[in-house]
Amino acid sequence: MDSYKLTATQVLDKYKSDELTVEQYAESLLARVRSRDPTVKAWAYLDPELVLARARALDQLPKDKRGPLHGVAIGVKDVIYTKDMPTAYNSPIYDRSFPKVDAASVQILRNAGALIFGKTRTTEFAATVVGPSTTNAHSAKRTPGGSSAGSGAAVGDLQVPLALGTQTGGSTIRPGSFNGIYALKPTWGAISREGQKLYSLILDVLGLYARSTADLDLLAEVFDLHDDEASLFQGVKGAKFAFCKTPNWDHAGEGTMNALEKAVSLLRSHGATVEELVLPEAFDKVTLWHEIILAGDGHAAFLPDYRTNKAQLDQFLQGHAERIAGWTRKQQLEAFDGIANLRPVIDEIAGRYEAIIVPSVPDEAPEGLEYTGSAIFNSMWTALHTPVVNIPGFKGANDMPIGLSLVAPRYRDRHLLKVSQAVGEIFEAEGGWKRDKI
Amino acid sequence: MDSYKLTATQVLDKYKSDELTVEQYAESLLARVRSRDPTVKAWAYLDPELVLARARALDQLPKDKRGPLHGVAIGVKDVIYTKDMPTAYNSPIYDRSFPKVDAASVQILRNAGALIFGKTRTTEFAATVVGPSTTNAHSAKRTPGGSSAGSGAAVGDLQVPLALGTQTGGSTIRPGSFNGIYALKPTWGAISREGQKLYSLILDVLGLYARSTADLDLLAEVFDLHDDEASLFQGVKGAKFAFCKTPNWDHAGEGTMNALEKAVSLLRSHGATVEELVLPEAFDKVTLWHEIILAGDGHAAFLPDYRTNKAQLDQFLQGHAERIAGWTRKQQLEAFDGIANLRPVIDEIAGRYEAIIVPSVPDEAPEGLEYTGSAIFNSMWTALHTPVVNIPGFKGANDMPIGLSLVAPRYRDRHLLKVSQAVGEIFEAEGGWKRDKI
Repeated sequence: MDSYKLTATQVLDKYKSDELTVEQYAESLLARVRSRDPTVKAWAYLDPELVLARARALDQLPKDKRGPLHGVAIGVKDVIYTKDMPTAYNSPIYDRSFPKVDAASVQILRNAGALIFGKTRTTEFAATVVGPSTTNAHSAKRTPGGSSAGSGAAVGDLQVPLALGTQTGGSTIRPGSFNGIYALKPTWGAISREGQKLYSLILDVLGLYARSTADLDLLAEVFDLHDDEASLFQGVKGAKFAFCKTPNWDHAGEGTMNALEKAVSLLRSHGATVEELVLPEAFDKVTLWHEIILAGDGHAAFLPDYRTNKAQLDQFLQGHAERIAGWTRKQQLEAFDGIANLRPVIDEIAGRYEAIIVPSVPDEAPEGLEYTGSAIFNSMWTALHTPVVNIPGFKGANDMPIGLSLVAPRYRDRHLLKVSQAVGEIFEAEGGWKRDKI
Repeated sequence: MDSYKLTATQVLDKYKSDELTVEQYAESLLARVRSRDPTVKAWAYLDPELVLARARALDQLPKDKRGPLHGVAIGVKDVIYTKDMPTAYNSPIYDRSFPKVDAASVQILRNAGALIFGKTRTTEFAATVVGPSTTNAHSAKRTPGGSSAGSGAAVGDLQVPLALGTQTGGSTIRPGSFNGIYALKPTWGAISREGQKLYSLILDVLGLYARSTADLDLLAEVFDLHDDEASLFQGVKGAKFAFCKTPNWDHAGEGTMNALEKAVSLLRSHGATVEELVLPEAFDKVTLWHEIILAGDGHAAFLPDYRTNKAQLDQFLQGHAERIAGWTRKQQLEAFDGIANLRPVIDEIAGRYEAIIVPSVPDEAPEGLEYTGSAIFNSMWTALHTPVVNIPGFKGANDMPIGLSLVAPRYRDRHLLKVSQAVGEIFEAEGGWKRDKI
């Protein structure tokens, strides 16, 4: 049985009905990795013996002691601490670094019975757009996006059903779109980022990857993501959506333009109302404000490695430490406070709809592995702290996947996942792109 | 020579003039610790052999390779990672935990030549008010405050000239006041908090302790704290200050009431204008908002240890994980956004003065070691992200030290230190409390 193709939810069902052991499942995933990793290069660290040993230990657990993620394999971006694997940040400075602690997220996953599978490749410190040689799950000559390159590619390539990413600009949503998978950037602060490399306190979040919304919901439950009230969403028919081209629409390529148009028409054909939303002018500044915050926070974040290992630090990050962008403290505060003012505004606006549909990326994954692509359509939502789900289903001129983002008010993550499930079914069935690997 | 009594700045002078070696200095500090630690119990981890080995290595450095903190001893609160010492958070769960990485702050200090001396005692995860048995530097029967109990006590007791603390409520300023030392809570985000235990992303900051403002300024320089413009402050004479009783004045005891009155009268007698500032009504909510944010962020922060080691987690932190306070997401966001709105307001108000003088604590350190005291006068400034300096100089009914806080707009840390120097000279000379240990 090719159990590597299963989603996490499907794997759990197989365990429950005794059709599969964790060891068998791990063997299947490891075989998939062996055959595909020479091309995809998703893994920064993967020890098959460790994986199998843990799998056997999980198999020994009596059923009543099994956690909600029992035996579910998950890849961990190599900027997140794992007590049994090194964490190298794709930085020569941390080449052999091995802090023997779990990040908060990994601790929760491990406690829930997850099989921590390996560390996935990242751009340097999850803070540059220089690809780590990982390829897209669907084309060896295209980028998987970044910075969560390996996590996006590994889930897209059926090497693991779940993976952890991080996002400061578009590091979770972009690889989600490029690799044709679901990605959740949760509300800022809803999941602890302890043990995850710091770039910007007010922007960084943990990100979650899966190939189904049911799997994302499983993770959301384990992380205790909770809305104030259960979602009243009853299905696409009769529901009200908005689509928003955002102030950065001039960056949209044909692939994204077509995807958005098709999405709107599909939702309408399924009985939804879909309005165009034009954001108030104040939102025009958010993308620049995000950049200013990054530079300021990047100064504090990269000063330590700049001081101790300047030559081994990416040029862009050296620039942060040197404050070459030249933003003043006053400009930093205007950006910080300006975005803070807009958070309740976007909550109110987004609350008028089941979700707002916005671009995930300018277009399908570009050719080449050096550049991981643009976060132009993501950074605004990162700064605004709203939850975002990338929904796959569309395709570009070269048949590569293109996703769209659904946005909801802060702390409406569970509602957004419920809406994403219904919308995802439609987009995946009728959007035009098929995950031909299954 | 009793070099343990020196400030960091004085120690550096001795090194420059070859009157002292780092090893000699370390021996002097270690002797002080040996004689005092049975009472004060400031240290969670201190390995004399390691200290001496590092000291000798620093002595080997040629003068032109020495950093700005060459051979200056610094204590590190035991919630901050150090690659050569364990980090136990005063939690039984992390009793033998030893992540072999330096926190960002420690990396910068070590790179600057500092002698990382040992780990100082903290309340559990720097998140409770249950004392870790450390005593006040000036009375064995009184609390040193918390959560940075050991750092405050060790600096107050002349065991090290500098120490790192952290602050989420009042964890840096309170021990500063109780132990009669200077404490800087920098502008939020100005120093990386990477590798420091997380409680609340939007509140936590690193804190700095010293026995002189010159020493704090030395640290500020090493951490590259920078204002947009150099301070124009020219001295107390002719300068304009405000004092503010804050919306929590009913918590002030006689010691703090007298200190504030005396401070105002001293500044006036030195030629300053001192106005009373009554904050706009909107600030009345900040203390409660701080509590709401703590509960929400505490949920995310303590969920991992709650899930894996509930019985070993403090009851109060269990409550965070269980969300027993019952604040809704809506209330959390009102608190988060409400405080965000007030940050530019307080910047504008504080910008009208050289500094605002506010209470640091309700009164002198209370008797007993169980309870580390109230953060009622600190949490507002923590939430507002402003820099705060505790200035010692006053005393309570039992001759224990009482400090006052100076507050400036965000990212005016260096200005605030300059003002603190002049104000500190007056308060220390005429405030009534003498650091009799020197």
